[in-house]
Amino acid sequence: MRAVDIIIKKRDKIELTREEIEFFVRGFATGDVPDYQASAFAMAVVLNGMTPRETTDLTLAMAHSGQMLDLSDVVDLAVDKHSSGGVGDKTSLAVLPIVAACGLPVGKMSGRGLGFSGGTLDKLESIPGYRVDLTTEEFKKQLKEKGIVLTGQSLDLAPADGKLYALRDVTGTVQSIPLIASSIMCKKLAAGAQAIVLDVKTGLGAFMQSLAEARELANLMTDIGKLAGREVVTLISDMNQPLGFAVGNALEVIEAIETLKGDGPEDFREHCLHVSAHMLVLGRRAKTLEEARTMAERSVSDGSALEKFRVLVEAQSGDVSYVDDTSKFPRAKFVETVEAPRSGSVSQVHARIVGEAAVALGAGRAKKGDPIDHAVGFVVHKKVGERVEEGEPLFTVHANDDARLAEAREAALAAYSISDDAIQPLPLFYS
Amino acid sequence: MRAVDIIIKKRDKIELTREEIEFFVRGFATGDVPDYQASAFAMAVVLNGMTPRETTDLTLAMAHSGQMLDLSDVVDLAVDKHSSGGVGDKTSLAVLPIVAACGLPVGKMSGRGLGFSGGTLDKLESIPGYRVDLTTEEFKKQLKEKGIVLTGQSLDLAPADGKLYALRDVTGTVQSIPLIASSIMCKKLAAGAQAIVLDVKTGLGAFMQSLAEARELANLMTDIGKLAGREVVTLISDMNQPLGFAVGNALEVIEAIETLKGDGPEDFREHCLHVSAHMLVLGRRAKTLEEARTMAERSVSDGSALEKFRVLVEAQSGDVSYVDDTSKFPRAKFVETVEAPRSGSVSQVHARIVGEAAVALGAGRAKKGDPIDHAVGFVVHKKVGERVEEGEPLFTVHANDDARLAEAREAALAAYSISDDAIQPLPLFYS
Repeated sequence: MRAVDIIIKKRDKIELTREEIEFFVRGFATGDVPDYQASAFAMAVVLNGMTPRETTDLTLAMAHSGQMLDLSDVVDLAVDKHSSGGVGDKTSLAVLPIVAACGLPVGKMSGRGLGFSGGTLDKLESIPGYRVDLTTEEFKKQLKEKGIVLTGQSLDLAPADGKLYALRDVTGTVQSIPLIASSIMCKKLAAGAQAIVLDVKTGLGAFMQSLAEARELANLMTDIGKLAGREVVTLISDMNQPLGFAVGNALEVIEAIETLKGDGPEDFREHCLHVSAHMLVLGRRAKTLEEARTMAERSVSDGSALEKFRVLVEAQSGDVSYVDDTSKFPRAKFVETVEAPRSGSVSQVHARIVGEAAVALGAGRAKKGDPIDHAVGFVVHKKVGERVEEGEPLFTVHANDDARLAEAREAALAAYSISDDAIQPLPLFYS
Repeated sequence: MRAVDIIIKKRDKIELTREEIEFFVRGFATGDVPDYQASAFAMAVVLNGMTPRETTDLTLAMAHSGQMLDLSDVVDLAVDKHSSGGVGDKTSLAVLPIVAACGLPVGKMSGRGLGFSGGTLDKLESIPGYRVDLTTEEFKKQLKEKGIVLTGQSLDLAPADGKLYALRDVTGTVQSIPLIASSIMCKKLAAGAQAIVLDVKTGLGAFMQSLAEARELANLMTDIGKLAGREVVTLISDMNQPLGFAVGNALEVIEAIETLKGDGPEDFREHCLHVSAHMLVLGRRAKTLEEARTMAERSVSDGSALEKFRVLVEAQSGDVSYVDDTSKFPRAKFVETVEAPRSGSVSQVHARIVGEAAVALGAGRAKKGDPIDHAVGFVVHKKVGERVEEGEPLFTVHANDDARLAEAREAALAAYSISDDAIQPLPLFYS
């Protein structure tokens, strides 16, 4: 078997066999297939596509390119969640404690933020001492004993995917639904997930800008799950505007804690309860979504979800006093509330623009390895569909530098559109 | 400007500007654009194509990636020829002496054979002492003084093309008419050609298997010529069966010499006179093709073309006695004539199969740098359309090893088809 012949088949739109895909991925992981062959292959996939069967084989080959986490001795059914990323998406911080409080143990490996999209690990590091570098042994022990883990990738999970993603980034081959789907799914499979809730974001602040693309990605991941023998539920949620109010690391952790306390923005709370309910059904903790939803709501109202969050932070060496008193979180030097320049209905809060403005404030990184300022970011006060009067608070900027403050104010103002007409609120989920 | 954005444009079928193409090719030549970006770009070109304007800009950028030979102080109009390669194609060996004998100075840089397709340099090296490594100064001096040069590439002509070709070979991106056209044309432009006769081969032993592809390549090279300010004539010639009778290095040189003596196979002679006539018209040595054709025929009948070949061999330190007495050429140990297994009309002499069998005998190389056996090869006695009786000589194998002889006999027999029906001869050229 030769790599070049596999590239030629894909170039000529001939379906590849599992053996061919495994040969190519294994060779790429070991370096026998050089980058220049992998990038030509990736471009052929971008332009000619892949069938669900090919995509599944690619997913499995990448999952098996490194270590495979086996959680079967720790949990009865390993349920995971994944979000395709967005602005203000602090879902894992609230959902994991909720489902764990409902008796479903969950251990999740998260990533860092890149570009305008935030990352769960960066957010958690707002809590002093919080460790995101658990070993596999620590991960399993904590999952068994505490029923909740939220850490970084300690294992070398799906290294072929990491290598391919870096290459795709510089060769114009990111934009391919089969490649995106296999990249997401292979890490979940390598991390031992047997059932997965996939939250595909769509809109201005998402990678999948159109609903059609989001649906295509969701359907393909469902197919991969089926073919790979995993249970998969896909949700498509709105990412035209930020999720919740807070955008920025400490600000988002505070919002998640408030939500676990029963407060927090309505849309974020609703989003978390919906995702949690699906996880509880997948994990056989509830028979129906309604039953699961009731359990999830109760875990918030009775304080058990918040308590699970405390357990999580404590288990991972974080300072629990921050959970009890969120005023201890680092606060930016400049906190300025910006008022609405006119009256009307909010018709847009452009998520990508807000996300990019937050990165410019220091809340995210333009490139891998850049430092993060945990204190800075935005809190939006008005969202799409809401009525606002001239002079009312529109959003608050948290900045550590007055030049950046001024830029962030202008950028976030430009993200807003206010209309004379009445505007419908955006849906949380698309069916 | 970033290479990845240029790749993305081509991926998205947006026409590239000249500046973008120049940036990419220059970067690739210097190594600033790595192989993995060039291969992704090449795959995008294979699948999305290029306009004639883009292809011309690519051609010019590759031509200018190294030294440009300027022949304007040596000849009034630099006329070159190119053949897209095939089996038994010894055209340059006869055409160059013919046109030079008609008063048109020609200096040509040729290549070596690869795969089933032979190379002019390998053939010439059958003549002891013949130098294919002239320096640029020697090239120009000989062209001025003798009016004929046939050597290898001494200059680093179009290095970006050489680098890209090597990459295309291993990334499944050879098969692209814009990339093939630019690869051929950039070397001609870099070698100083102002007018070019392009002989595009089509058929079983050619890279362009279908006439439609050959026409597309020919038309695109004509367009490039026009846009680059060069005169271009394209011919499309048959390569379903070997050209002439001889396939193999010394055997082909002998056949070319016989042709210059007024003998040789009718099809090869006709092919050479046709190509020569076009070169003479392009080079302003004749006003019409008819006039040029008469001149070319006369140069053969009056011995002046053969004399030019002697001048060439002598100027490049070859042993001229081989031209005068072709029995001096190395002869293979085993020379076996194979008879027709049945009577009928020859309906196929599969050029690629014969070419590959010649490579297996040692006449060619499977990979760059392999040694060549100049003595071995085939002489076919019957070609498509000819009647043959059972037991009549069909072809002769020249081999230096009896195991290879047996294999070559079987392979060449399998290249032949003999039909009960009367078969039309193949055309030499397609219009």
